[in-house]
Amino acid sequence: ACHSNHVIPHIPLNPSLFTTASSSNFYSATSYLFIGLSLLLHLPKCIKYSVYLLIDNSFIVADTEVVYKNRNGHVVKLNVETNATMLLLENTTFVTFKASRYSVSPDLRFVLLAYDVKQVFHYSYTASYVIYNIHTREVWELNPPEVEDSILQYAAWGVQGEQLIYIFENNIYYQPDVKSSSLRLTSSGKEGIIFNGIADWLYEEELLHSHVAHWWSPDGERLAFLMINDTLVPNMVIPRFTGGLYPKGKHYPYPKDGLCACVCVCVCNIYTYMQVLPMLPNATNYKTLEYYITMVKWVSNTKTVVRWLNRPQNISILTVCETTTGACSKKYEITSEVWLSKQNEEPVFSKDGSKFFMIVPVKQGGRGEFHHIAMLIAKTEQISVRHLTSGNWEVIKILAYDENTQKIYFLSTEDSPRGRQLHSVSTVGLLNRQCLSCNFMKDQCTYFSAKFSPMNKHFLLHCKGPGVPVVSVHTTSNPGKFYILEDNAVLKETILKKKIFRTEIKMLHIEDYELPLQLSFPKDFTDRNQYAVLLIIDEAPGSQLVTDKFHVDWDSVLVNSDNVIVARFDGRGSGFQGLKILQEVHHCLGSVEVKDQIAAVESLLKQPFIDPNRLSIFGKGYGGYIASMILKSNERLFKCGAVIAPITDMKLYASAFSERYLGIPSKEENTYQASSVLHNIHGLKEENLLIVHGTADTKVHFQHSAELIKHLIKAGVNYTMQIYPDEGHNIVSEKSKYHLYSTILGFFSACLKEEAPILPQEPEEDE
Amino acid sequence: ACHSNHVIPHIPLNPSLFTTASSSNFYSATSYLFIGLSLLLHLPKCIKYSVYLLIDNSFIVADTEVVYKNRNGHVVKLNVETNATMLLLENTTFVTFKASRYSVSPDLRFVLLAYDVKQVFHYSYTASYVIYNIHTREVWELNPPEVEDSILQYAAWGVQGEQLIYIFENNIYYQPDVKSSSLRLTSSGKEGIIFNGIADWLYEEELLHSHVAHWWSPDGERLAFLMINDTLVPNMVIPRFTGGLYPKGKHYPYPKDGLCACVCVCVCNIYTYMQVLPMLPNATNYKTLEYYITMVKWVSNTKTVVRWLNRPQNISILTVCETTTGACSKKYEITSEVWLSKQNEEPVFSKDGSKFFMIVPVKQGGRGEFHHIAMLIAKTEQISVRHLTSGNWEVIKILAYDENTQKIYFLSTEDSPRGRQLHSVSTVGLLNRQCLSCNFMKDQCTYFSAKFSPMNKHFLLHCKGPGVPVVSVHTTSNPGKFYILEDNAVLKETILKKKIFRTEIKMLHIEDYELPLQLSFPKDFTDRNQYAVLLIIDEAPGSQLVTDKFHVDWDSVLVNSDNVIVARFDGRGSGFQGLKILQEVHHCLGSVEVKDQIAAVESLLKQPFIDPNRLSIFGKGYGGYIASMILKSNERLFKCGAVIAPITDMKLYASAFSERYLGIPSKEENTYQASSVLHNIHGLKEENLLIVHGTADTKVHFQHSAELIKHLIKAGVNYTMQIYPDEGHNIVSEKSKYHLYSTILGFFSACLKEEAPILPQEPEEDE
Repeated sequence: ACHSNHVIPHIPLNPSLFTTASSSNFYSATSYLFIGLSLLLHLPKCIKYSVYLLIDNSFIVADTEVVYKNRNGHVVKLNVETNATMLLLENTTFVTFKASRYSVSPDLRFVLLAYDVKQVFHYSYTASYVIYNIHTREVWELNPPEVEDSILQYAAWGVQGEQLIYIFENNIYYQPDVKSSSLRLTSSGKEGIIFNGIADWLYEEELLHSHVAHWWSPDGERLAFLMINDTLVPNMVIPRFTGGLYPKGKHYPYPKDGLCACVCVCVCNIYTYMQVLPMLPNATNYKTLEYYITMVKWVSNTKTVVRWLNRPQNISILTVCETTTGACSKKYEITSEVWLSKQNEEPVFSKDGSKFFMIVPVKQGGRGEFHHIAMLIAKTEQISVRHLTSGNWEVIKILAYDENTQKIYFLSTEDSPRGRQLHSVSTVGLLNRQCLSCNFMKDQCTYFSAKFSPMNKHFLLHCKGPGVPVVSVHTTSNPGKFYILEDNAVLKETILKKKIFRTEIKMLHIEDYELPLQLSFPKDFTDRNQYAVLLIIDEAPGSQLVTDKFHVDWDSVLVNSDNVIVARFDGRGSGFQGLKILQEVHHCLGSVEVKDQIAAVESLLKQPFIDPNRLSIFGKGYGGYIASMILKSNERLFKCGAVIAPITDMKLYASAFSERYLGIPSKEENTYQASSVLHNIHGLKEENLLIVHGTADTKVHFQHSAELIKHLIKAGVNYTMQIYPDEGHNIVSEKSKYHLYSTILGFFSACLKEEAPILPQEPEEDE
Repeated sequence: ACHSNHVIPHIPLNPSLFTTASSSNFYSATSYLFIGLSLLLHLPKCIKYSVYLLIDNSFIVADTEVVYKNRNGHVVKLNVETNATMLLLENTTFVTFKASRYSVSPDLRFVLLAYDVKQVFHYSYTASYVIYNIHTREVWELNPPEVEDSILQYAAWGVQGEQLIYIFENNIYYQPDVKSSSLRLTSSGKEGIIFNGIADWLYEEELLHSHVAHWWSPDGERLAFLMINDTLVPNMVIPRFTGGLYPKGKHYPYPKDGLCACVCVCVCNIYTYMQVLPMLPNATNYKTLEYYITMVKWVSNTKTVVRWLNRPQNISILTVCETTTGACSKKYEITSEVWLSKQNEEPVFSKDGSKFFMIVPVKQGGRGEFHHIAMLIAKTEQISVRHLTSGNWEVIKILAYDENTQKIYFLSTEDSPRGRQLHSVSTVGLLNRQCLSCNFMKDQCTYFSAKFSPMNKHFLLHCKGPGVPVVSVHTTSNPGKFYILEDNAVLKETILKKKIFRTEIKMLHIEDYELPLQLSFPKDFTDRNQYAVLLIIDEAPGSQLVTDKFHVDWDSVLVNSDNVIVARFDGRGSGFQGLKILQEVHHCLGSVEVKDQIAAVESLLKQPFIDPNRLSIFGKGYGGYIASMILKSNERLFKCGAVIAPITDMKLYASAFSERYLGIPSKEENTYQASSVLHNIHGLKEENLLIVHGTADTKVHFQHSAELIKHLIKAGVNYTMQIYPDEGHNIVSEKSKYHLYSTILGFFSACLKEEAPILPQEPEEDE
């Protein structure tokens, strides 16, 4: 009975509107919550809460219609104006086809169902597909010509009618409608070498943050795609240990230490499909062929905008390319001493292309640069810039531009760096700003994401915290008029009943910055007791741990069951609080971050309710790296630490990441050595360390932990370890995940438990 | 200062006289002792004791001369009759050339020095070589034509003058003298596919127990060698994790589950070196090409004796081959219901070839078969057999046949199954037997090995226990006349002073057998106390744990420092006590052995001085397999267990091993499943288990532990683990070995420590 309640993740209708990136993220976030909640609330392993949150996958198909999967697993269409719903797909269909992801065709007549879904890297997965006719229940398999039971790297509807696109063996295939046969649009694809329309590991993980590397023109007539050539990039081998007598490893290109893929953006006309035209980067002034393409977007039916980034990632050029000729002209160039951020951000163009809006760093007095919206107007050869917003806060994302009202809709941190509110700003006159989300469920919601309907008449609002998530549809002209798709009432009630911990934020003053420290207190907290502390470290530079997002995970169990205070601190290197704080880590990863985290803990120690002998630390990936560096530093603050899949040497990690923060390895040998955990490993001597790693981790290779262990053994340092054979960076199998959480909880619980008072030992009796 | 005292392992002068197998074994045994002693005696990490034992590498070059490396690391020649010594090679020469192995030419004028020695599998290693002229100090590198700085798979002197042979890229090279250029004798060699003169993994580990697969004719004119074709054998991949950005794995043929190499024995005439003649197995009645060659030996300058074994390993045929024609004729055939043992044993031929001696199973009434010496005399077409020995004891090895006295010299267990004494037996008349070693240092020595001089005038006697090892040279005609090469006096004195534990043997009666249980008692043992027990499991079926061999290892530390009683028990499946006990495991590995070990522990529990709540178990490789099976069984006897590189499924292990005991996998699916640790893993539920494995183990692949962990995670069973990145089956690096021992000792010490008496807990104060 429990089984049918399992989470069924979705594939979005239109990847260009709704990034698959966030859908993949969501998938993992859901699973996390799932176990976290089960442990915390002592619930059975299959509960319904997780399903309720999946509402995020809903989307607006027309200006008045929303299609989404509801809490019962049915896919329904809602008319926002009449509140009438229509069943498109019953939940049993998913069971029939063993399908775990779905996508409805733009004409709402067919569904693409994915089964045998197997994760490849962070976002990418392979699957087999069937096309299902909603009305006749007819079914067709989706296969390349002459191939049966194919496993595809990607499949989705196009933007018009029944257009289908899929990727097989690194080549793009096109199918005009569900019944016609496929045409192969590219032929250069070669496994592990040439990638057409799909990202290689580096583009997926570090540059595009998506595996999708192709984009439809609005009329569905042209397809822009990246052709990534990895001929010069060495292959990494991921061994396999289980599942056969002679398990075969996995080879894939992974650039480390100064090795780079060649990339170009091509456009193919679907109707004259032989013509594949590369866009020429002539408009850029890059001397070498070493550049990245970080963003491609259509701005009309024949024009694309492309962002080119040089390899040191400090010169970015935005061009508009005429896809009928392949000629690109430069629209905007930005140069910096340090690396550039927000390189995936899509500029929003006016219909006539005469102006466009994008997010640029803008200096705000002594507090440095903050991200704000600029309006760029092309005037013959020159481009004039007007800043639409300013202040000591950040614009997160431009969502839409309404030609009629001449308003830009965007998310920002104007109210608080920890929140995200939906605002509009007028692009004319006094640039009036208005908040559209500020009054919606004020007590429960300060952290939003949003999505606008094609004509901007409605928008979906997803409140992500601090209360339980809520999803609603609003009328743009009157945001107070809304319809709630999901309020997670059951989850809310359970949490209230269980009296789950409360959190508090303290601002710390470190080197002229005000930086937030978030503490989660056990429910029966009293400052007359002394508590153990777990410090959790963030997973990447430029991200943010202290936010208003609703969050329940394994660490919540420590707070509630083990009376541990969990601390999160966004020090220098963290994002969304201005570029100055972020860029402090330039060329010194693992240095200021370590100092700030230690300073935060030292400030905590001034509190009487903290037990200075029971401090611990946790980090995963890059967080594992910082946690290791903290433990390695000479301060003997922590009693124990756990690291999952830690990066231990930036030379072994992806070039685009390492070079962004540390520069080219050959030129910055000392910087790389100083940043390595393996260097001067003796610092870890007196620590109680747990190292966890999946042996098939394609992001942070098991190599990192192997080198760490080898160095620890050499130095005679003790540690505990746990490996997960053939599991990746995210442990996905339910059993392994359960084991992982038990291991971590057990480790911290043992390390942080109050020492029993020492009693005088009785002498041994001699009978 | 300490560094120069380090153990320098040797390569033997002549591999055909002195098996490299035992030299390799010795190398590792020495290192074991080294660390075991250091820990036990609280000695500094570099001590001299280990060096003293290396005397085993001495050998008799002429009937009156012994060449050996003495305790100072000098290579000296001793005249046994005059006791005069001559320095051949100073210890500093090893330092100069960074050489770790050496070999003196038969004319004693040159030394072959090996440097950059890198272990490949159990016995095999690669190295680079120089030839050193003892008198002129001239030096030549040993390289194939047109190759510089070559890394060779093998190199050694021939049997005459300055003949040299070496193996490079799986081909054999011959060099008539130190200055001449090399001739390539074979050309078919192909890495990982065709092996000439050197064993592949299976032949090295499971069939020949040596990597040397070539044999010189006594006159040095002909070379017999195996050509092993692994075309049909799949490659196993051993991943590499450390030491580079993109570490490359290691591929090598490793047959599992019914896959078998093709093999033939070829003979090459050195002077007309193009003629490589394969010996034809026509004389065998094998229907298929699936057979093993387990022994090749020259019996005259043109004749070899070859033993062929069918794949189920129950039909063995001994042929004599005329190497000038390639024709082989059958001399002896043995067939059995179960697998055949002693298949490497070399028969000893009389000079005229009219008779030969070999070890065969002989029925001894109700107690089943025991290994004894048979004399086989060829009479036209028939062969008559005469048994020279009989009784409820075993002949271990035939060492020599003296044509003059018509005596056979051999090692046997006549005095005790735990000892090895040197005997002679007359091959004529009443078959009088005489013991040559029984009176030598009686109190200290009951376990010997021996080596005879070419004309049998003298023999080397190596006393291996129970006291500290002693090496001496004796006159055959008067064994009481001896010269002691090494008495390990310092080691003896240290052990006496430190009052190291004592051992005791108890015979247990299990299923009609009397089986030995050996207990090591802490030095202050008193039966009024209760002690924890560690049960150590043997590493292979057919071997023996309870012997009179001198032995100090990590477990000795537990006895002396942690007051643990260490137990060893040879149950059914163990060797040297008759074939019936050994063969009880046929088609049921992991069943009777488990029963017997449990029975042994249960019998122990009847002793008042055993604490039933503090029992533990340890095993490595096959021993790890049996230990896991014991823990998995339903008896909840043990508090904890540690397994190193455990075999967890016989299907994943070498075919020649698995098939020997369990039969062909396709026919014996149930047998294989029943014998698997992974099957019904839930049995391990309540155990406290430590799993240790080197990730580059080429014998028991890391795959075994990975599958075990995966199954344990699935079943929700707890365990502790330790991996050694890129270390093999035997952890060789000093730091890793030290870490390994600390880990195991720490694990057992924590598990076996006496529980503190439980005191009533005081209520927590609320201030």
